[in-house]
Amino acid sequence: MKLTILGCYAATPRTFTNPTSQVLEIKNHIFLIDCGEGTQVQLRRNKIKFSKIQHIFISHLHGDHCFGLVGLISTFRLLNREIDLHVYGPKGIKEIITLQLKLSNSWTNYSLYFHELESKSSEIIYEDAKVTVETIPLNHRIYTNGFLFREKPGERKLLIQKAQEFNIDVSLYNSLKKGKNVISEDGELIPNTEVTTDPAPVKSYAYCSDTAFYPEIVPQIKGATVLYHESTFLDDKFELAAPTKHSTAKQAAAIAKEAGVSQLLLGHYSTRYPNIEEFKEEASEIFPNCELSDDGKVFVFE
Amino acid sequence: MKLTILGCYAATPRTFTNPTSQVLEIKNHIFLIDCGEGTQVQLRRNKIKFSKIQHIFISHLHGDHCFGLVGLISTFRLLNREIDLHVYGPKGIKEIITLQLKLSNSWTNYSLYFHELESKSSEIIYEDAKVTVETIPLNHRIYTNGFLFREKPGERKLLIQKAQEFNIDVSLYNSLKKGKNVISEDGELIPNTEVTTDPAPVKSYAYCSDTAFYPEIVPQIKGATVLYHESTFLDDKFELAAPTKHSTAKQAAAIAKEAGVSQLLLGHYSTRYPNIEEFKEEASEIFPNCELSDDGKVFVFE
Repeated sequence: MKLTILGCYAATPRTFTNPTSQVLEIKNHIFLIDCGEGTQVQLRRNKIKFSKIQHIFISHLHGDHCFGLVGLISTFRLLNREIDLHVYGPKGIKEIITLQLKLSNSWTNYSLYFHELESKSSEIIYEDAKVTVETIPLNHRIYTNGFLFREKPGERKLLIQKAQEFNIDVSLYNSLKKGKNVISEDGELIPNTEVTTDPAPVKSYAYCSDTAFYPEIVPQIKGATVLYHESTFLDDKFELAAPTKHSTAKQAAAIAKEAGVSQLLLGHYSTRYPNIEEFKEEASEIFPNCELSDDGKVFVFE
Repeated sequence: MKLTILGCYAATPRTFTNPTSQVLEIKNHIFLIDCGEGTQVQLRRNKIKFSKIQHIFISHLHGDHCFGLVGLISTFRLLNREIDLHVYGPKGIKEIITLQLKLSNSWTNYSLYFHELESKSSEIIYEDAKVTVETIPLNHRIYTNGFLFREKPGERKLLIQKAQEFNIDVSLYNSLKKGKNVISEDGELIPNTEVTTDPAPVKSYAYCSDTAFYPEIVPQIKGATVLYHESTFLDDKFELAAPTKHSTAKQAAAIAKEAGVSQLLLGHYSTRYPNIEEFKEEASEIFPNCELSDDGKVFVFE
């Protein structure tokens, strides 16, 4: 599981910082999460192949999370993209994009599917054999979802030597990998755990931005491998967090601690702070395994 | 008259080039012309004060000329802008912007006026004591206007020593500057030209992008100080110009020559060309006083 931060600053793009966008590579998928203005240039800069992006998840319709989407969709067209593109985001996102494509008379030459979200409860919005993506309803000024990306457990690992010792026919190996007990050539019932071991532990990534301090998300993200939680403010601006429905670094750390995640990533820093190291300092007091996102930074989670 | 090129490449923003946007400073106005994605960052990079921009002119609704507008309007709001903003552009532009502001629940705290254009004939869309702006109907795949920015003639220059010699009362100096004849203290009729000289010659800037080769614009831009004319292609791709309704460098030069402008600026280069110097070489053969736009370049026209 690999995460590339394209942008992680709040509000407006600046000369050297970008609004929110990130790329999650998980089980051979390249998922784009949020798409602030300038995302397509950040994708180029970070050498992410455009054609590998088939799913884009938009948390909410504030500009710093979505104003780069129409440009990216248009660029895909100009590059003669042929493969499908799926966009998941709040109701209204389809109208925003299609209005602009209509008025510029620039329909895509590839299939563009919108999956509009309006549920206030969590729902699975993507699923295949290897991964699921579910919404994490957040508490922001407008309708906002985080996203929980979860690997599915892989097959059990077959201990081939053991299987041979128990005289199990090769045609049953797949059943063993799926966790089933089998009958050996000698007519014996072989319990699955005798010839397999557990699959590699699954990893999960919980993306939570933007949101006020909102402990209601804790049960859903419990035990996640990585939690990205917005931290717009330091504690010095604590009083701004609640009315703007953003969080402080300490609040992000409190969520991480309560949820028992393995690692916390901070981001969505207000551009008023010249030194983002202070976010880490404040959060680490509460949750030590905490890292700072920054534009262009790549995290590999083994 | 000063022109700052924020971006002058066709189609998609790239790591080191930007789509179309430029800033024209004329008679104390700061006019923003077109607004591709990334314009707000280019404004910062080129140290153009956001608050000085009160008028934005959008030629057409292709993304490389307008996808940066909603972000700029939103940033103005985040920076607590108070002064009015006027946007001139094709019909539909208001719907594009207001839909996004509505869905993000982010109405501007300043007054935002849309002046939607749909006339196929030239019209004056802005006028004050010192300058006029009129549309230049162009020939592109969708409804597109260029813009002609014209200084108004200033007052005549008073030759104070002469006026004193003719014994003209100071209270009449303003009439002289306005071109009127006056009666001296000695009762003599003093012809205006005896005590004044012509005002400084007026300057004008014709912005023509995007457009096919379209000689119909020549009468309107006749004698302009500067013509910015798109040159998407070199002559090697001549056959692409007509169907895409773009121009070659040679065609831009032919328009400049026919219109007898003082200077030609080329831009809107297709990103297929690694060396833009070739645009200048081709155009110069037909119209020698030709310059290349490039991102971040500043032209001062005396």
